[in-house]
Amino acid sequence: MITNPDQKTSTMKKLINKVDEVVLDQLKGMALAHPDLIVNLDPKFIYRADAPVANKVAIISGGGSGHEPMHGGFVGPGMLDGACPGEVFTSPTPDQMYECAKAVNSGAGVLFLVKNYTGDVMNFEMAAELLHADGIAVQCILIDDDVAVKDSLYTAGRRGVGTTVLMEKIVGAAAESGYTLDQCADLARKINTYGRSMGMALTSCTVPAAGKPTFELGDQEIEIGIGIHGEPGMKRVPFLSADEITIVLANEILEDEGYTRTVREWNRSTGAWEEKVLTDAPFNKTEEVIVMVNSMGGTPLSELYSIYRKLDEICKLKGVKIVRNLIGSYITSLEMQGCSITILKTDEEILKFWDSPVNTPALRWGV
Amino acid sequence: MITNPDQKTSTMKKLINKVDEVVLDQLKGMALAHPDLIVNLDPKFIYRADAPVANKVAIISGGGSGHEPMHGGFVGPGMLDGACPGEVFTSPTPDQMYECAKAVNSGAGVLFLVKNYTGDVMNFEMAAELLHADGIAVQCILIDDDVAVKDSLYTAGRRGVGTTVLMEKIVGAAAESGYTLDQCADLARKINTYGRSMGMALTSCTVPAAGKPTFELGDQEIEIGIGIHGEPGMKRVPFLSADEITIVLANEILEDEGYTRTVREWNRSTGAWEEKVLTDAPFNKTEEVIVMVNSMGGTPLSELYSIYRKLDEICKLKGVKIVRNLIGSYITSLEMQGCSITILKTDEEILKFWDSPVNTPALRWGV
Repeated sequence: MITNPDQKTSTMKKLINKVDEVVLDQLKGMALAHPDLIVNLDPKFIYRADAPVANKVAIISGGGSGHEPMHGGFVGPGMLDGACPGEVFTSPTPDQMYECAKAVNSGAGVLFLVKNYTGDVMNFEMAAELLHADGIAVQCILIDDDVAVKDSLYTAGRRGVGTTVLMEKIVGAAAESGYTLDQCADLARKINTYGRSMGMALTSCTVPAAGKPTFELGDQEIEIGIGIHGEPGMKRVPFLSADEITIVLANEILEDEGYTRTVREWNRSTGAWEEKVLTDAPFNKTEEVIVMVNSMGGTPLSELYSIYRKLDEICKLKGVKIVRNLIGSYITSLEMQGCSITILKTDEEILKFWDSPVNTPALRWGV
Repeated sequence: MITNPDQKTSTMKKLINKVDEVVLDQLKGMALAHPDLIVNLDPKFIYRADAPVANKVAIISGGGSGHEPMHGGFVGPGMLDGACPGEVFTSPTPDQMYECAKAVNSGAGVLFLVKNYTGDVMNFEMAAELLHADGIAVQCILIDDDVAVKDSLYTAGRRGVGTTVLMEKIVGAAAESGYTLDQCADLARKINTYGRSMGMALTSCTVPAAGKPTFELGDQEIEIGIGIHGEPGMKRVPFLSADEITIVLANEILEDEGYTRTVREWNRSTGAWEEKVLTDAPFNKTEEVIVMVNSMGGTPLSELYSIYRKLDEICKLKGVKIVRNLIGSYITSLEMQGCSITILKTDEEILKFWDSPVNTPALRWGV
């Protein structure tokens, strides 16, 4: 037997080959497994094989790899037209978004859904400018839903986390139904102000290129408010039970007061960036919500149901009604153990598009 | 902050409350999350809310908890009518299968799909005898598809692993289409002789009640041929790359020679158990197959795609054609890191029922 020559340290046990080909190998596997998708390897992007879809706004997202199934696993009818994966925990580059947009644009315009990390924001903005110069209608909407921190290692303002998954589903369905670019952007902006998330970690994860855990956690410690790259959270506390963890996460989300920030949005008329003030309103007592209980990657599904049990109880106590749920691994941090909770206020428009058909590798219903 | 009083040792970090209520908490969460299912807590079983379905054979499976989504996540139209979860890695008891069967039997009979572990086999057999005494037509089909070992810690003969997932899908669809009990049993038996699996572990898992890892693996060691309870595999070897691991698992499966064993099957006419000799034929060179690349629980989806990439290459080299695939966490061992591969020969009948609609928490398509 040959030992893996790329196995840099004794702490990294992964199903990988060469550390610098991890993303490439995974994309090749996706291409083989899912003939409905086309995987472009240089630059790297994944898109619907039936794109461009006539008269349909193209929805594109992207970000560092290591969060699978997000985003590549969400490409398909009713969700994303294209996804741009960077290296692990590293922003994709503007040429990826630019080429992806060119491949899927039908002429109805392109909407970028961008998680709030400095690199992602900068690169998506650059791609938007390039596309505008080519005469393609393009819009960028930010996701900044993480109540755990304001400003972090990689972000000014709140980080973009779990609401991304729900936004991609809902806005994807809206685009499929014939929404215009402006309507899709309005809906996405609303979802961002309606959604809030928070996560926690039991263990760290290991980026293949680093070869050692991103951070160290004691045997009896957990990290509350962790980011999806293992970046520091809100606080490090002694080990808690599932119920206690659920209480902490749910309370931070449900008690979150109105969050006001200034975001940059593209103005297609002036061809320039302009500042816009957005505010998340607090949760009302009689809110109807969609919740996601998400594994960070290494936590099994079984444990998520314990979290959901307590979350349902807390919501009922607070008068918040869960009308839909999603429980599983959707926005992960490699093999990190832990979970996150996302709560999204819903309304008739959001619920209709949540329930619409979706047919992607990682989310599939109604088809 | 209160530390978890049930946290027995420093090595167990899980999203749980009391160790003796782990399964209970999870079942309560499932009941809340999935209103299409009914969860009975004493004795424990999960079943379709619309059961019994008139004139339909009822398909029931079960086994120890800790393998989620199997089996509870596979209950719903087009798959299982009911599932009986034991405590973690512990067989359910005959009263669970008996009560579950009573709840879902429409009069068209009950088929038990039983993974080959001594406790499961014994308890399902006892439940079958009780049901027969009540005048209910019942049949048991064994799954013994693990090519890694012949006889193991918990089993005489090969263990029942990944083929179970595919069998539940395919036989579930057949029952939905109106197959009789005998036809369902024949199809299940065929699938068992057509399917083979093998798994491997990068890390151990920890049973909550034990509070420490089931086994110890060195930092540079992996276990090839691991069982789904962490029971010993075929061999322990130095760390391998994803490609090397795929080669080992795929070769053991594809090169496996005809496997002949004697199984016990229920004879409804005589009301007695009788022995039956079954043989798995080797894979032909021009086989069409369904493959599953499965995470043991703690391995993220991204790494499974690297395994699939190599598996596709190996199959092509051997003239075996992959016509369908399933990639994700379907039959797990708590938070164990590692993967398993299942390869199932297919034919027109199997493929038709694979493609039929299914609507369960963990598998959903065509609806």
